[in-house]
Amino acid sequence: MLYDDLDRMFAPKSVAVVGAKRIDPALTYLGMFGAIQQSGYKGRLYPINPKLKTVNGVKAYPDLLSLPEPVDLVIISVPAPAVPGILKDCVKTGNKNIHIFTAGFKETGEPTGLKLQKEIEDIAVNNGLRVIGPNCMGICVPELGLGTWNNPIDLKGPVAFVSQSGGHAQDFSNYAANFGIGFSKIVSFGNALTLDSTDFLEYLSQDPKTEIITMYLEGVKNGRKLLGLVKDINKTKPVVIIKGGLTKSGTKAVASHTGSMAGEEHFWNAFFRQTGAIRAHSLEDMAHTTLALLRLKKTRGKGVCVFGTGGGVVVAISDTCSRIGLDLPPFSPRMQRSLRTFVPEAGNMIKNPLDAHHILLEADKYMAKTMDLIYEAPDIHMAIISLHTDWIGPKFMPKVTSAIKTIIPGHLKEKPFVVCWRQTRHDPETRQAAEVLEKELLDAGIPVYRSFEHAALALARFSDYHLYYQFQDRVNKNLFKGEEMKLAS
Amino acid sequence: MLYDDLDRMFAPKSVAVVGAKRIDPALTYLGMFGAIQQSGYKGRLYPINPKLKTVNGVKAYPDLLSLPEPVDLVIISVPAPAVPGILKDCVKTGNKNIHIFTAGFKETGEPTGLKLQKEIEDIAVNNGLRVIGPNCMGICVPELGLGTWNNPIDLKGPVAFVSQSGGHAQDFSNYAANFGIGFSKIVSFGNALTLDSTDFLEYLSQDPKTEIITMYLEGVKNGRKLLGLVKDINKTKPVVIIKGGLTKSGTKAVASHTGSMAGEEHFWNAFFRQTGAIRAHSLEDMAHTTLALLRLKKTRGKGVCVFGTGGGVVVAISDTCSRIGLDLPPFSPRMQRSLRTFVPEAGNMIKNPLDAHHILLEADKYMAKTMDLIYEAPDIHMAIISLHTDWIGPKFMPKVTSAIKTIIPGHLKEKPFVVCWRQTRHDPETRQAAEVLEKELLDAGIPVYRSFEHAALALARFSDYHLYYQFQDRVNKNLFKGEEMKLAS
Repeated sequence: MLYDDLDRMFAPKSVAVVGAKRIDPALTYLGMFGAIQQSGYKGRLYPINPKLKTVNGVKAYPDLLSLPEPVDLVIISVPAPAVPGILKDCVKTGNKNIHIFTAGFKETGEPTGLKLQKEIEDIAVNNGLRVIGPNCMGICVPELGLGTWNNPIDLKGPVAFVSQSGGHAQDFSNYAANFGIGFSKIVSFGNALTLDSTDFLEYLSQDPKTEIITMYLEGVKNGRKLLGLVKDINKTKPVVIIKGGLTKSGTKAVASHTGSMAGEEHFWNAFFRQTGAIRAHSLEDMAHTTLALLRLKKTRGKGVCVFGTGGGVVVAISDTCSRIGLDLPPFSPRMQRSLRTFVPEAGNMIKNPLDAHHILLEADKYMAKTMDLIYEAPDIHMAIISLHTDWIGPKFMPKVTSAIKTIIPGHLKEKPFVVCWRQTRHDPETRQAAEVLEKELLDAGIPVYRSFEHAALALARFSDYHLYYQFQDRVNKNLFKGEEMKLAS
Repeated sequence: MLYDDLDRMFAPKSVAVVGAKRIDPALTYLGMFGAIQQSGYKGRLYPINPKLKTVNGVKAYPDLLSLPEPVDLVIISVPAPAVPGILKDCVKTGNKNIHIFTAGFKETGEPTGLKLQKEIEDIAVNNGLRVIGPNCMGICVPELGLGTWNNPIDLKGPVAFVSQSGGHAQDFSNYAANFGIGFSKIVSFGNALTLDSTDFLEYLSQDPKTEIITMYLEGVKNGRKLLGLVKDINKTKPVVIIKGGLTKSGTKAVASHTGSMAGEEHFWNAFFRQTGAIRAHSLEDMAHTTLALLRLKKTRGKGVCVFGTGGGVVVAISDTCSRIGLDLPPFSPRMQRSLRTFVPEAGNMIKNPLDAHHILLEADKYMAKTMDLIYEAPDIHMAIISLHTDWIGPKFMPKVTSAIKTIIPGHLKEKPFVVCWRQTRHDPETRQAAEVLEKELLDAGIPVYRSFEHAALALARFSDYHLYYQFQDRVNKNLFKGEEMKLAS
């Protein structure tokens, strides 16, 4: 059973590091063994190094054969030419779950590396070894304090990340953690000797601790299998994917990185259309989208109401919404009349986007009232509250924060909203007040972004995801009407 | 003479504020008069308000007629219906240079506002008044301590900003100042009653203190005139333009903001092709491009060498360069051999982008050597040093900073380079070290950006600008050869 096998690797009770080294103060990286110690792994951890008696205070073993038990995960961190020998030791000792950290294989493009990769592939395939890597960082599980790099995130949560890049595994989890996004499992799998993205996907689809799956892919061995899996899994666990190496230069870079074949833009365009998976363009973009998927329930459409401030900003917001594919439905005359009862005419435009600084400055009185009107408008499905902290000023920020918190219970689930803020002026006091606002709202479960574009892009992707299935559902039930077309456009 | 007239407005020895109010502690905005006082204007400043004896400690006058002199600039800040009367006072007193702050005219789209705009237009045109506005923030000149909003920037420099939005005037100058970009003149001109962007352009083209002109435009009255002016001026003073309101939603927003007709995407596409002006897509983007234009001399091509770190990052860098239109020429075998003499094989890829963390960690030894090799490579025209501060760590940052500084004299002018940094992990110590690095390098005249994408986009625009004229020059001299085509593509 793939699930049971991988679950043992992702929740290992025992780990051996072959090629464990002592921490070298001259290097920034702690090494595989040092990093796992530092991250707080509570299982049985064995360093293997024939030249050392102890490694960072732990008794060392000369080889896998001398270990007291077969372990749930063997991590190989020896020079590339020594890797085939270690794999043979794995076969002898009944160790089947392996992560090869070592680089210097297919990705070099050199005859030596290609030959070595073929050699370890033969050993692995002929003996049924399950190999993560080579040329990768392997597994990080915050819940277990298991991490192979310096300062791995310790925030557990329902997001999994399957990454062909070890650097991205670190960067994405670090960046996402800033938004309070926690992780169930992170895996960096490099050259994909035997275990590929499709294997991890199958495992995560059944993992009860994973609700959203994020991926960074360079190449894939079995495109048809990936398509079928993602199409199926995405219905219940949203799948967000960055495909690296689609351009000419990117394809070359991918070949040097994980030795994969990238390119094939047409395949990937069709892939996203057919699976409904969400395509992200950068790690930041993927984190912003994940935050929306994680915190917001669902939406019935792409009509958005934006609270902004300033005429130029409102033009930029409108252009951004058009470009990104969010609708800005005009307010009905009735809604405009209701808004006019508490928003003065001077300096406040009662249109969508709403240019009404007044509502923000008197947020305690008017924020909930405004949201009630939005709630009643049939063609508005979501809202973005765009805060310009330079204009609000540090004194007013706590009032705005608590006003936004009061509207959560009635709205976040029914008509989701997000908050974004921006600051252009160098002013530490305002910056600090903005960061407090951000933290309080994030802690309260509201997605908060640092630019309108990030917020709009996240909501566009979030709504694309939900509308994809609502549209399909209507087609399947033969409820299709002409006007539904716009939902899918 | 337009130049002399506008020069009096932009360097006024005396200013009167009609409708000057006392600072209201309940409001965040200081008001026109309070803001000019706060910004440190040294000229003669007259508050006009018939209901007050003094305004913020300065003797008030009841009207323009009672002033001791005609002033170089009259600022009108009274309710819209009172504006025609004040303009008539201007005519009576020989005051010709006027800024109307007041909103409530054409931009409302309402009969009252449209009628009022027609009325003030007639008075202005029939009496030769030069009017900035209505519905705008007017003039900011850091050198004179003249500013009409709270906390205007005080950094003088060679960049001018002509903006149809007052909010953008503040935001752009604040954001740009963070990069050490100083301003000669900033003007927010709103509904453009008599003075339009073309007038300000003509003035700035002759202004000896302005070397780069940035613009935010929503609409323009005379497109042909704008095209001719920009085509001419851009040859000697780069013109960077954001055009707001090109989308469907944006066009509607522009109508409510400054009452302009936006849209006409085809016109604007042709405009940028024919003038060679640089198109920016956001205030941030415009500031990044301005920084490159300001600090870097010129380039002979779009070949860039990137110092990066990490395989996934290198793929992202490559995809970004392809998408943005920068070339990543492969290193010659000779250059690769030279790099191999000091860059070890393990974990360092001698390709372009260069994945060589080693060079950064031993920056004092290897940075200059690497730059010398880049300098010799004929198809590399520029470089980007991309720093991942999480991986470099706060201890190594000062070494990297000083190594980068040492390479400036030999390179910045001949083969321009920029630096970018990113941090994904929440770590105040690293963040602080990165901000110190950023400040030191900016102070040393090196463009520094907070993401690779920003750096690449700025270099792409910078090189587009220079190659536009180099290409034209070759065509004009009949030196055109087939391979030159790629310069212009």
